[in-house]
Amino acid sequence: MFIMIKKPIQLQPSERVDDLLTHNMGIIQSDEVFSFSMDAVLLARFARVPRRGRLLDLCSGNGVIPLLLSTATEASLEGIEIQPRLADMARRSIALNGLEERVSMREGDLRELYLETGHGVYDYITVNPPYMPLNGSDRKLNEHQAIARHEIHCTLEEVIQAASRLLRSGGKLAMVHKPHRLAEIMVLLHQYRLEPKIIRFVHPRAGVEANMVLIECLRDGKPEVRLQPPLLVYDEQGVYCPELLEIYYGKEETS
Amino acid sequence: MFIMIKKPIQLQPSERVDDLLTHNMGIIQSDEVFSFSMDAVLLARFARVPRRGRLLDLCSGNGVIPLLLSTATEASLEGIEIQPRLADMARRSIALNGLEERVSMREGDLRELYLETGHGVYDYITVNPPYMPLNGSDRKLNEHQAIARHEIHCTLEEVIQAASRLLRSGGKLAMVHKPHRLAEIMVLLHQYRLEPKIIRFVHPRAGVEANMVLIECLRDGKPEVRLQPPLLVYDEQGVYCPELLEIYYGKEETS
Repeated sequence: MFIMIKKPIQLQPSERVDDLLTHNMGIIQSDEVFSFSMDAVLLARFARVPRRGRLLDLCSGNGVIPLLLSTATEASLEGIEIQPRLADMARRSIALNGLEERVSMREGDLRELYLETGHGVYDYITVNPPYMPLNGSDRKLNEHQAIARHEIHCTLEEVIQAASRLLRSGGKLAMVHKPHRLAEIMVLLHQYRLEPKIIRFVHPRAGVEANMVLIECLRDGKPEVRLQPPLLVYDEQGVYCPELLEIYYGKEETS
Repeated sequence: MFIMIKKPIQLQPSERVDDLLTHNMGIIQSDEVFSFSMDAVLLARFARVPRRGRLLDLCSGNGVIPLLLSTATEASLEGIEIQPRLADMARRSIALNGLEERVSMREGDLRELYLETGHGVYDYITVNPPYMPLNGSDRKLNEHQAIARHEIHCTLEEVIQAASRLLRSGGKLAMVHKPHRLAEIMVLLHQYRLEPKIIRFVHPRAGVEANMVLIECLRDGKPEVRLQPPLLVYDEQGVYCPELLEIYYGKEETS
């Protein structure tokens, strides 16, 4: 595997270019600011995005999800990220991969985006939101890390409300979150007319509780959920399961 | 395995005594009226019932759940069933196993039970309700079968409302249902102050969608769900998985 740099870009202190592990793409990361996690990769590969249309990623961070989705669709991909430093990283990663014509990153507040775009303009929205409520925030995190993990700039309800406003009727939302908040998530999705249609739980290995949940919802859909087989991360030897490797590297490249 | 009949009972036409597969217990069944399914067994073994207190089983059918629970607790066990024929079968099964002092079956409408018992009187409630809404009812079913499977005498909301009324604050509800109705279930549980705390999905085998969900809720609990490892019914050879055998036969008896 190698990274194919389409355009030279400037790195800031602490930044590095990591391998996105697919299609020879790179991404700018920084342990001090933001590095994507497995959650983002699983969400991008869980989302059944349309071939065409207008797609949006909320809480986009360094843009990992739009970058990964660019390999799965010809649709226009937008991201919105509230932290200027991260939006800038994302834009440079978009340029690095020569994707400026299809992928864009907006710096702004997702709660106000509908004022700019109007209601119901997107066909598909993805979101890997902060998982933790504001109370009990970990004081050891720096500002960038705290904003990514805790509901400092947007609550779960605000994220779901924003997605509901921005999606057209029949549009879809794909979200990754923590199973311990499943009840809240389901109640809020219903409240904002986003009907869960496909749910998949991720378990670190067989026989242990899930630590991640992937949900795809249909705006104005009828209630009927399909509960996919669990996704296991590690096998009994502590090695990535075949399905996980396929999600990361794609089917062709594992052989 | 054998059935130890504690008291002679009269069988009606089409009835037979089946092995409950645990503690040498028997149960009266009839293919024309009611036979319990795996769902009831999984629910009875999923429910973490208290040692003592007052327990209730809604939509109790032929009483399979109270009978199974009698092996796991010294609490008093009550059931309520709307069909006279089934309540009678259950009472004879209770007698058959010599459990009249601990287990009782009421013939009646669960929606009105609180008028008789008062609010908040139970410590733990179990329910294996009809899974299917009234629309799209299968005309090939006889009346007994239709009532057990379709929401003819009570809707999902009425079941959850009844449980909410009957449970004390801090009491628990354990329910088995179909995953495709998960979104409705979660919304209604929240609406009636039954907070899901433990969820487990049952998959027929590895790699396929879940066809059953087990949920334990806490009356007036705080939202925080634990998502247990999936329960697989069959292994790749089409044989019951070890955990399922353990649920059916108990740990000691499998060896």
